[in-house]
Amino acid sequence: MFEKVRVVLVEPSHPGNVGAVARAMKNMGFERLYLVKPRRFPDEEATWRAASAGDVLDSAVVVDSLFEALSDCAFAVGTSARERRIPWPILDARRASAEMVTRASQSEVALVFGREDRGLTNEELELCHLHVNIPTSDAYRSLNLAMAVQILCYELRMQVLFEDLPESSDSDWDAPFADVESLSRFYEHLEQTLIDIAFLDPAAPRQLMKRLRRLYNRIQIDEMELNILRGILTETQKVAHELGALKTRSTQGEAE
Amino acid sequence: MFEKVRVVLVEPSHPGNVGAVARAMKNMGFERLYLVKPRRFPDEEATWRAASAGDVLDSAVVVDSLFEALSDCAFAVGTSARERRIPWPILDARRASAEMVTRASQSEVALVFGREDRGLTNEELELCHLHVNIPTSDAYRSLNLAMAVQILCYELRMQVLFEDLPESSDSDWDAPFADVESLSRFYEHLEQTLIDIAFLDPAAPRQLMKRLRRLYNRIQIDEMELNILRGILTETQKVAHELGALKTRSTQGEAE
Repeated sequence: MFEKVRVVLVEPSHPGNVGAVARAMKNMGFERLYLVKPRRFPDEEATWRAASAGDVLDSAVVVDSLFEALSDCAFAVGTSARERRIPWPILDARRASAEMVTRASQSEVALVFGREDRGLTNEELELCHLHVNIPTSDAYRSLNLAMAVQILCYELRMQVLFEDLPESSDSDWDAPFADVESLSRFYEHLEQTLIDIAFLDPAAPRQLMKRLRRLYNRIQIDEMELNILRGILTETQKVAHELGALKTRSTQGEAE
Repeated sequence: MFEKVRVVLVEPSHPGNVGAVARAMKNMGFERLYLVKPRRFPDEEATWRAASAGDVLDSAVVVDSLFEALSDCAFAVGTSARERRIPWPILDARRASAEMVTRASQSEVALVFGREDRGLTNEELELCHLHVNIPTSDAYRSLNLAMAVQILCYELRMQVLFEDLPESSDSDWDAPFADVESLSRFYEHLEQTLIDIAFLDPAAPRQLMKRLRRLYNRIQIDEMELNILRGILTETQKVAHELGALKTRSTQGEAE
């Protein structure tokens, strides 16, 4: 897919944007940039903004018309912000990316971006099979050119990657998670310790253990963490027992 | 959701990035920006890059530490590129955004971005409940700061919008689509016209009509388009019949 997709910029006026587009593309795994009549190219500012994507600029194809940039493409998608008088097939960035990935399995496809100030002309949009819209806020509709490229290249990349990315936030965990039996022993140990330090009165336990169970059950505790917590409990009990023994001895001393 | 989420930039060094972040946020409907010890702020370059998002810069909260920026947040998500020695809960940008939207229904949430060159420190990342990763290409891993903000704000926005966006590319079409009966009349009309202009020989039709049916059935033709096509057929037939009549007359003339 990544080799079948070209990004086409029509008459970009700011070299900084061209550089930022090159970087956005390479960050997402795309390398084929076409420039239709860029105002200034090559340009130092473009090279600076491209950072480590200078190779994308070096291999960019400069052409005189959008028609030339698309001539060997079987599917072209044009970015469009405005409503058209005659509606054209249009999808949001995510759904359009899904469509492009499907098409790219068979043919060369192009993603076309217009001028910073005026976008694509009607004639240019009519060269495209599908229009794509990035749903921006009513408070500020106009996306920077490189940002639009970034979002669409990201969406294309995610079409390919998403299913294979871990669904769970702890998929790469370093210890196995504790099972119910170990947890149950932990809760018993915790309860006994709380009695030992006189925080829990077995005669009036109220909801204390329930609240602590709910607290610890909201995390999936791993075995290493459980060992640490039980170690803390054991040491706490030692301190409590030592204090108890000292008190007993001193009471006996007084009594003698 | 949009009012419950703050974007926190830790020690951004380039004012241009701060401005681009403000624009990226406002484009996606977010307005609350926190800056932890920005190198230069306010700054002309930031204002220029923010374009029409100057209000986001004006209302930005400048603080001295990440702890201060997060103190009233119940859920903080930190961007992380590196692998951690002790794994922390981590999700990709899409799944992390889903989690943030859920949390934002109840509490203040923060999305934290690190320095351009070094990201967030371990201590800063440990203030976060969840880490988030944007899956970039092995060929070029390091995203520009404002691009990372753009992608995450876009993902958050799409979490809310996606279901309501049209699933089909022709959901706003300006004419009803033609039904099977109208299409069948069109195919008869087309076949007769092709016979009239002698493109189709009824004695040896081959696969011609099947190929044309497959062609037109791959589009959902609307009623207005069908009328245009039938109008073209009718005019074509007129020309063919006129030619036929002229030829007959001239043959008769020769015969006389």
